[in-house]
Amino acid sequence: MKPLILISNDDGVDSPGLHHLAHVASEFGDVVVVAPDHNASGLGASITCLQPLRCKLVDASENVSYYACNGTPVDCVMLGKEHVCSRRPDLILSGINYGSNASINVMYSGTMGAVIQGCLDGCQSIGFSLLNHRPDADFAACTKIIQHIISQVLAHPLPIGTGLNVNIPRLPANEIKGIRVCRQAHAQWLNNHEQRIDPVGKPYWWLTGKFVCDDKDGDTDQYWLEQGYVSVVPIRPDLTDYQQLNNLNNLQL
Amino acid sequence: MKPLILISNDDGVDSPGLHHLAHVASEFGDVVVVAPDHNASGLGASITCLQPLRCKLVDASENVSYYACNGTPVDCVMLGKEHVCSRRPDLILSGINYGSNASINVMYSGTMGAVIQGCLDGCQSIGFSLLNHRPDADFAACTKIIQHIISQVLAHPLPIGTGLNVNIPRLPANEIKGIRVCRQAHAQWLNNHEQRIDPVGKPYWWLTGKFVCDDKDGDTDQYWLEQGYVSVVPIRPDLTDYQQLNNLNNLQL
Repeated sequence: MKPLILISNDDGVDSPGLHHLAHVASEFGDVVVVAPDHNASGLGASITCLQPLRCKLVDASENVSYYACNGTPVDCVMLGKEHVCSRRPDLILSGINYGSNASINVMYSGTMGAVIQGCLDGCQSIGFSLLNHRPDADFAACTKIIQHIISQVLAHPLPIGTGLNVNIPRLPANEIKGIRVCRQAHAQWLNNHEQRIDPVGKPYWWLTGKFVCDDKDGDTDQYWLEQGYVSVVPIRPDLTDYQQLNNLNNLQL
Repeated sequence: MKPLILISNDDGVDSPGLHHLAHVASEFGDVVVVAPDHNASGLGASITCLQPLRCKLVDASENVSYYACNGTPVDCVMLGKEHVCSRRPDLILSGINYGSNASINVMYSGTMGAVIQGCLDGCQSIGFSLLNHRPDADFAACTKIIQHIISQVLAHPLPIGTGLNVNIPRLPANEIKGIRVCRQAHAQWLNNHEQRIDPVGKPYWWLTGKFVCDDKDGDTDQYWLEQGYVSVVPIRPDLTDYQQLNNLNNLQL
């Protein structure tokens, strides 16, 4: 039986990055896309608690179906898996995201929210992001990387609960130096909101900010991306700070 | 100088749980509350990318000010820290949440999203949740626990980047057996959406689901809560699966 591949993203069902990923994935199996009907960037692993969800077929070809959902990327994965896919998916993919989800961006990313949900459901799950925010971003250099990683994961499944956060540098295919498995860099967003004054004199704020990474070790996603490599961070939706488990017992809690 | 304490939540600025936490915290310092002007449950660590944010003072007493914001809990913490607090807060608190944020609920919780943002900003950060969803939940049993944990953290700061996920069982104060530092339990939500048919015959879905925890080890938050203890999980916003870093290098990525 051909693999069944469920795909979502956070840029929305019309995103060329999503369509590129679905096209590449369709070489490996039957593809069901369930993606937000809107731009869901920054929605992280959020879920829709207070609104009913809708999901409708918007396009279908021989082995790729596209469904648009009014929910978050996590909602899309849940609904896709439970109510759209004909059986449990063999692989959950997300992206290709416009812009980096390396380092702490993984915490805010809706694209990676879909991957986190896949991990929580015990499915093989991979998120792909290209370090290019431009609407005319060229995804051609991503093709071989995505093919390689999908074929490796289908051949050698990840441990249950582990997913991959794959970030691809903004370089022509022949300038990408390789793939590196690494950890998430520690970093910060600074000055996150710019204040403006509306026409009646009241303040409002826009999200902006400056990404600052002081984590200069040679084993992080941020480091390898800057060196021209694809970064692959194995992720697991467990926030426990294991290093502190014992130390905290001294806190006399 | 008295500590400056920034507080948020996901149940919204009118939540009695939030007011209880602000009241207890005000014994320790000056309190600035910046909380969503709406129910933001399930918003995780999401951020508002595409809308301008507003934030306004809605109530103030001697040493507690309440601001309502149209953003997510993470937005509230960012805006509160950058544009509302007169200086960098000494402590960021979130809650008291109605219902458990133990186990994998930490990934979806807006209350814990605020704590994650505090950790990313390098602030001392603690989230409090009571295992009671009822609107008339009694927060009295939380008071001494919150006092104890705040005083310990102010006296012995956590490592930078580490926060606490505190869950309190639904028991009278004299039946709570103690506090246990522990790890996040692995678990799953199953059958997450219930399908219904609208008056014109089209399907829609409501979030629902059943929490299933097969992780029966004696060192998890879920275990200790079931035994009548308060669970304290040290958390860190790093999703790297460190156990798999080396194994994955064998994947020939």
